Amino acid sequence: MLQLVLDPTSALPLSEQIVIGIRARIDDRVLRAGMRLPTIRDFAERHGVSRYTVVEAYDRLVALGYARSRRGSGFYVEGRPAPAAGTPARGELARIFASAGLLHRSMDEAPNRLKVGLGWLPAEWYDEAGVRRHLRALSRQPRVKLTSYGSPQGYAPLREQLCVKLAEAAIPASPEQIVLTGGATHALDIIVRHLLKPGDCVFVDDPGPWNLFANLRLFGVNLIGVPRLQQGPDPAVLEALLGEHQPKMFFTQSVLQNPTACDLSPASAFRLLQLAEKHDFLVVEDDVYGDFHPRPPTRLASLDQLRRVIYVGSFSHTLSGNLRVGFVACEPELAARLTDVKIVTCLCSSEFAEQLVYRMLTEGHYRNYVQRLRERLLKAGARTLQMLERSGFTEFAEPAGGMFVWARAKGREDVAQLASQAAAEDIMLAPGHVFRPQLQPTPYLRFNVAYAQDPRLERFLSRAGGATPVDGRQDR
Amino acid sequence: MLQLVLDPTSALPLSEQIVIGIRARIDDRVLRAGMRLPTIRDFAERHGVSRYTVVEAYDRLVALGYARSRRGSGFYVEGRPAPAAGTPARGELARIFASAGLLHRSMDEAPNRLKVGLGWLPAEWYDEAGVRRHLRALSRQPRVKLTSYGSPQGYAPLREQLCVKLAEAAIPASPEQIVLTGGATHALDIIVRHLLKPGDCVFVDDPGPWNLFANLRLFGVNLIGVPRLQQGPDPAVLEALLGEHQPKMFFTQSVLQNPTACDLSPASAFRLLQLAEKHDFLVVEDDVYGDFHPRPPTRLASLDQLRRVIYVGSFSHTLSGNLRVGFVACEPELAARLTDVKIVTCLCSSEFAEQLVYRMLTEGHYRNYVQRLRERLLKAGARTLQMLERSGFTEFAEPAGGMFVWARAKGREDVAQLASQAAAEDIMLAPGHVFRPQLQPTPYLRFNVAYAQDPRLERFLSRAGGATPVDGRQDR
Repeated sequence: MLQLVLDPTSALPLSEQIVIGIRARIDDRVLRAGMRLPTIRDFAERHGVSRYTVVEAYDRLVALGYARSRRGSGFYVEGRPAPAAGTPARGELARIFASAGLLHRSMDEAPNRLKVGLGWLPAEWYDEAGVRRHLRALSRQPRVKLTSYGSPQGYAPLREQLCVKLAEAAIPASPEQIVLTGGATHALDIIVRHLLKPGDCVFVDDPGPWNLFANLRLFGVNLIGVPRLQQGPDPAVLEALLGEHQPKMFFTQSVLQNPTACDLSPASAFRLLQLAEKHDFLVVEDDVYGDFHPRPPTRLASLDQLRRVIYVGSFSHTLSGNLRVGFVACEPELAARLTDVKIVTCLCSSEFAEQLVYRMLTEGHYRNYVQRLRERLLKAGARTLQMLERSGFTEFAEPAGGMFVWARAKGREDVAQLASQAAAEDIMLAPGHVFRPQLQPTPYLRFNVAYAQDPRLERFLSRAGGATPVDGRQDR
Repeated sequence: MLQLVLDPTSALPLSEQIVIGIRARIDDRVLRAGMRLPTIRDFAERHGVSRYTVVEAYDRLVALGYARSRRGSGFYVEGRPAPAAGTPARGELARIFASAGLLHRSMDEAPNRLKVGLGWLPAEWYDEAGVRRHLRALSRQPRVKLTSYGSPQGYAPLREQLCVKLAEAAIPASPEQIVLTGGATHALDIIVRHLLKPGDCVFVDDPGPWNLFANLRLFGVNLIGVPRLQQGPDPAVLEALLGEHQPKMFFTQSVLQNPTACDLSPASAFRLLQLAEKHDFLVVEDDVYGDFHPRPPTRLASLDQLRRVIYVGSFSHTLSGNLRVGFVACEPELAARLTDVKIVTCLCSSEFAEQLVYRMLTEGHYRNYVQRLRERLLKAGARTLQMLERSGFTEFAEPAGGMFVWARAKGREDVAQLASQAAAEDIMLAPGHVFRPQLQPTPYLRFNVAYAQDPRLERFLSRAGGATPVDGRQDR
């Protein structure tokens, strides 16, 4: 059953939202050649839009070569020449991305907006004063590099320091195995560009981080979502999908996964690495939330020791999202090639920012600071769970810590509508479909616990939260 | 006649250098399906390598599907399935890049190495003290963003300031038309990723900037070099190439072009834009050296007003290569899409660095500082020309200013060999073939005038410079 999430408040016309939604499913082969699209009447009724809108969308899909019309019989998915044509038009992708709209709304300067859907901490949770202090100290140091280009692989002392940090997580690496990048998104980007080609198939967590999905789509990769349960990827579905597809990579987060806030269990981690070996795919472990975990969690890279696992980290969530410092840790030959890709695509990262992060790690009581942040997050998380409970929400699982709660309103399926209502009150929510590889509907939303305690949210949720019947229509 | 540049001192085996060289020509359709490769004996003799090495390389090409052997008749270029397979293997590309090796040698921390081949100024030519001063001032300002993410399009006051700067160059733009990036390489990268797809054909200056070529190759684009004369692209060759190919874009530098240091004449600029209109291609104008020009030069964007021209700039050569601040100026709709690509690939640029550059532009006497830099470069350029003359070199054209002189040794064709000799004395030269799209041989080298006055260079050149007969073999 084809069910799209349409946002009547979006600047994008409904017909175009339908085209984008169906295209994404065809590109990712969820809808396959020869399958019949819903009738115009069915589609219109199920989505609460006019038939004219659906006709317009279907005609556009025919014009784009994604569907064909058979006289008297309806519309069918057209066979697409793979994989060159699998490379989607760049503009279309940007619109898929813009239609989610989350990041633009996140980054808008809107001082009164309550950004409960945000993917990072409020500025006042960071150690701004500490950054200032180190900045001043750095501007006084004689040997700091401020004007000439940095070294291609990144500031060597920071790479050494990262090896110390990784060793504490039982991931042994040498500085040659570390490539510094402009954040984790950039790290994932150079991995994709070096190791994948358009038309390749990759597995991702469903739900998972939508900026990764947008990046993979931009590159023209086919995304297959593997349902993410509390313990890790759904083992039965994963095995079944491996029978159908030959993925080049599995992108996952072991620790405080975005958006579910769940950890990979040791058994799931072991099983995943066994399957990676058997089916010969690489695993990219994106560990950007690891430092928020109150206990030592299981990481794939500590089991595999950077053989089949490529590890990605960042300081954007703990020290600064503004300085743009992240890294890849992997086997040395791959690190050398990723450095080449980095040079070819952006010459080098900012060694100045890397020197600043190095100082903050080595002289800035990083451990104590992160410890305080963790505790603050745990308290905020507990209060958020209580508030959600009061407002008629149930969490997917109780998070071990970190920034997020993934929760659904009891008896309410249509959260895109809820997010639209919230936007009208300048509350930014993150409806769950943006975390799904094909933007499929889901009753869940992601809550940022640092924002969720603002009384405006509880007021809004208790008014609007459970007030909608399951069929998704408003009572009012 | 197939002539490759082989570097016997490279870490890369000669046979692999041959494979890479021939693959590049096949990927770019300089060698086409059905063409006969030179006989093993001919190839070995012309390149001064053993026949065994050539056999090994040809066998490898056959294994890769790039050539086939016809019994008793030799080796032939194999028809390549375009354009999906036109996407070259990433590893292979990284090696093409590494085999040029220039940037790695540029960025090595080697305090005694004389980096005459470098593409930027020595650290001591930059205003390091000024950067420090502004850094300190910035760390004291209360409203500076240090920890939270920057706005996706880049720090708005800097975009406004860039509009003022562009207006002075007769390029009218509004802040919505500016996207800030992590340097010019990153700016070119997001343009390529949004507007091109693997297998597309683009035109580039020949010679031109090799990091652009490496980037385009990584993306899987076919590069066609248009000979760059003193006045601009060779008009006859350009017209002929437009008869054969349908390029999506022409990448060029109008002002102090790298490596020739020549400017586009007004007539060439006009003609190029006429052809762009007629043949419907976009022009990417990379203006990273513009501020070094002593007179107001002709820019394509000031003729075209950012309609068909996408303009790229950077502060890496004037203020700091380390802070990573560059930009794109283009029509507003495209700027919005490039912002999306930026978000999807690296989330945001460093607003902290952008705030610093903004301060330096608005309060740092940028104009006076650049004026002094220009004059210093002019003097260094004049002295470099004299020194090269004394050492038996002739320049391609007398540069109007800037960092580079493009010159050849009288009576010496084989400059890759010269660069190897220089490397043995810890002098890093930039032999001309790295600036050619298919790494074709050229007798020219690029000299960085800021380094060229070190007496070690003149001593080396007068010893080695003109000492080699034209056939490329050493007398000694």
